[in-house]
Amino acid sequence: MRMKTLLLLLSCSFWATHVHAQDETEWRAVDPERLVVMTLDAGVVFLELNSTFAPATVTQFKRLVREGFYDGLSFYRVIEGFVAQGGDGSDMGNANSEPTIKGEFERKLTASLPFTSVQKPDMFAAETGFSDGFAAARDPREGTAWLTHCPGTLAMARLNEADTSSTDFYIVIGQAPRYLDRNMNIFGRVVLGMDIVQRIRRGAASEGGMLSETDTRTAITSVRIAADIAPSERPAVEVMDTDSAAFAAMLESRRHRVHEFFQHTPAPVLDVCQVPNAGRLLSAN
Amino acid sequence: MRMKTLLLLLSCSFWATHVHAQDETEWRAVDPERLVVMTLDAGVVFLELNSTFAPATVTQFKRLVREGFYDGLSFYRVIEGFVAQGGDGSDMGNANSEPTIKGEFERKLTASLPFTSVQKPDMFAAETGFSDGFAAARDPREGTAWLTHCPGTLAMARLNEADTSSTDFYIVIGQAPRYLDRNMNIFGRVVLGMDIVQRIRRGAASEGGMLSETDTRTAITSVRIAADIAPSERPAVEVMDTDSAAFAAMLESRRHRVHEFFQHTPAPVLDVCQVPNAGRLLSAN
Repeated sequence: MRMKTLLLLLSCSFWATHVHAQDETEWRAVDPERLVVMTLDAGVVFLELNSTFAPATVTQFKRLVREGFYDGLSFYRVIEGFVAQGGDGSDMGNANSEPTIKGEFERKLTASLPFTSVQKPDMFAAETGFSDGFAAARDPREGTAWLTHCPGTLAMARLNEADTSSTDFYIVIGQAPRYLDRNMNIFGRVVLGMDIVQRIRRGAASEGGMLSETDTRTAITSVRIAADIAPSERPAVEVMDTDSAAFAAMLESRRHRVHEFFQHTPAPVLDVCQVPNAGRLLSAN
Repeated sequence: MRMKTLLLLLSCSFWATHVHAQDETEWRAVDPERLVVMTLDAGVVFLELNSTFAPATVTQFKRLVREGFYDGLSFYRVIEGFVAQGGDGSDMGNANSEPTIKGEFERKLTASLPFTSVQKPDMFAAETGFSDGFAAARDPREGTAWLTHCPGTLAMARLNEADTSSTDFYIVIGQAPRYLDRNMNIFGRVVLGMDIVQRIRRGAASEGGMLSETDTRTAITSVRIAADIAPSERPAVEVMDTDSAAFAAMLESRRHRVHEFFQHTPAPVLDVCQVPNAGRLLSAN
């Protein structure tokens, strides 16, 4: 009997607790105007845009999507454990004439900004948490708030100068590169399909992740704003309501782990980038 | 001219610095007795075993590999952002008769244990660093040291009880679940092929990552100890020498980032799980 139930990574009861905690989470629908449907040859990735932290970036990205700018492009610089960078690869000499976007690296911290605290301080910020579903940080003393680089974070590439983002974007695919926080135009996040994102083909480390041969790259078949898709075909995606009491309770249960599984009690801290926060696709469609 | 060089995630000069720092790294060969060649249908993954921290686990794992135990098995429980768990899936009722392994969750901290410090303290430990290439932590006050859960960490599954590991293993594929530190038999790490590991098919979140249909799982075609492969066919893998001055210099340059790219100076801290530490395959073979 003993052998029959051996070898769990985490015991059945632990998983039950884990899954149960997520089941109790409250959900909110993603506004179709902020829901991006990105189809790769490996599958479909759903992203949610964030106008609260990066309004100008979102405006330009949505315009480009609606003009079909990204359709048929690819992920041309992909570094395992770091980022998958896609677009027209202007850094490879394919110029474009799109305007640059001002830096939207952080914003003013206001009383109305939603913020569910996770860790104070964490290693990189005075305080981390979630703002409308997005992993974020704030510094009340400075009066600033910003989105953090976690796996699945969507941000714009740029040159050394602050206001040089334009069209190329990246998705974080590795351990959170938090040192980039407050340095990039983070304007969205993957809410569903990180398994597809992880299938994006990497470039050689010796080439800095560049995939110089076009046919070796993962293609971006199409990018659509969900609102532009006919209602009968439109995907409906929900994400955890990170302002809910259920989410706060989940955070607390993860901060103070009391399950019998733990032989050594973990430190009572939480990495904001390690909190499960994926969305779900409603089957109605 | 401006447009031609736009849209880099990080500028050319930044990348040059980044790559240069890695080029300067000193390398050491992985002992063929500790090098595991795991072939999946998606490609080959190279793992390095660690007898310093988990001698009993390594002994049992190597015996199982040499008996062909894992050949033809699969990754049956795979949770995006967390772990890929493989083996015979005994938790699904397929019993095995292999002995259980005692808990090797931490070891005594001795003066002879190699340790290149990274962060003191980090959010989860008194001090993190690298020990012979492996991300690790130590607590000099307690006199203990342990391997940490980072992306690519290889560890044994277990039940709630401490000494219940046997054959099923997992590889960390998401943001470091450091709360599992000092709770699992960590006995190795991926040194090459994390891009292949990331292609392992995920199970549904609603099923706790379980892939109940065998034909949907990523198969483990074969697992070999490199020493058992004929010398003419044997792969030679090198890993960064984390005890070298070059590695220490790389850590320091990442802890204090002074490149003009940074509009906001990052906090002078380092996440041990975010330090680039992949191996390389020598082309001689």
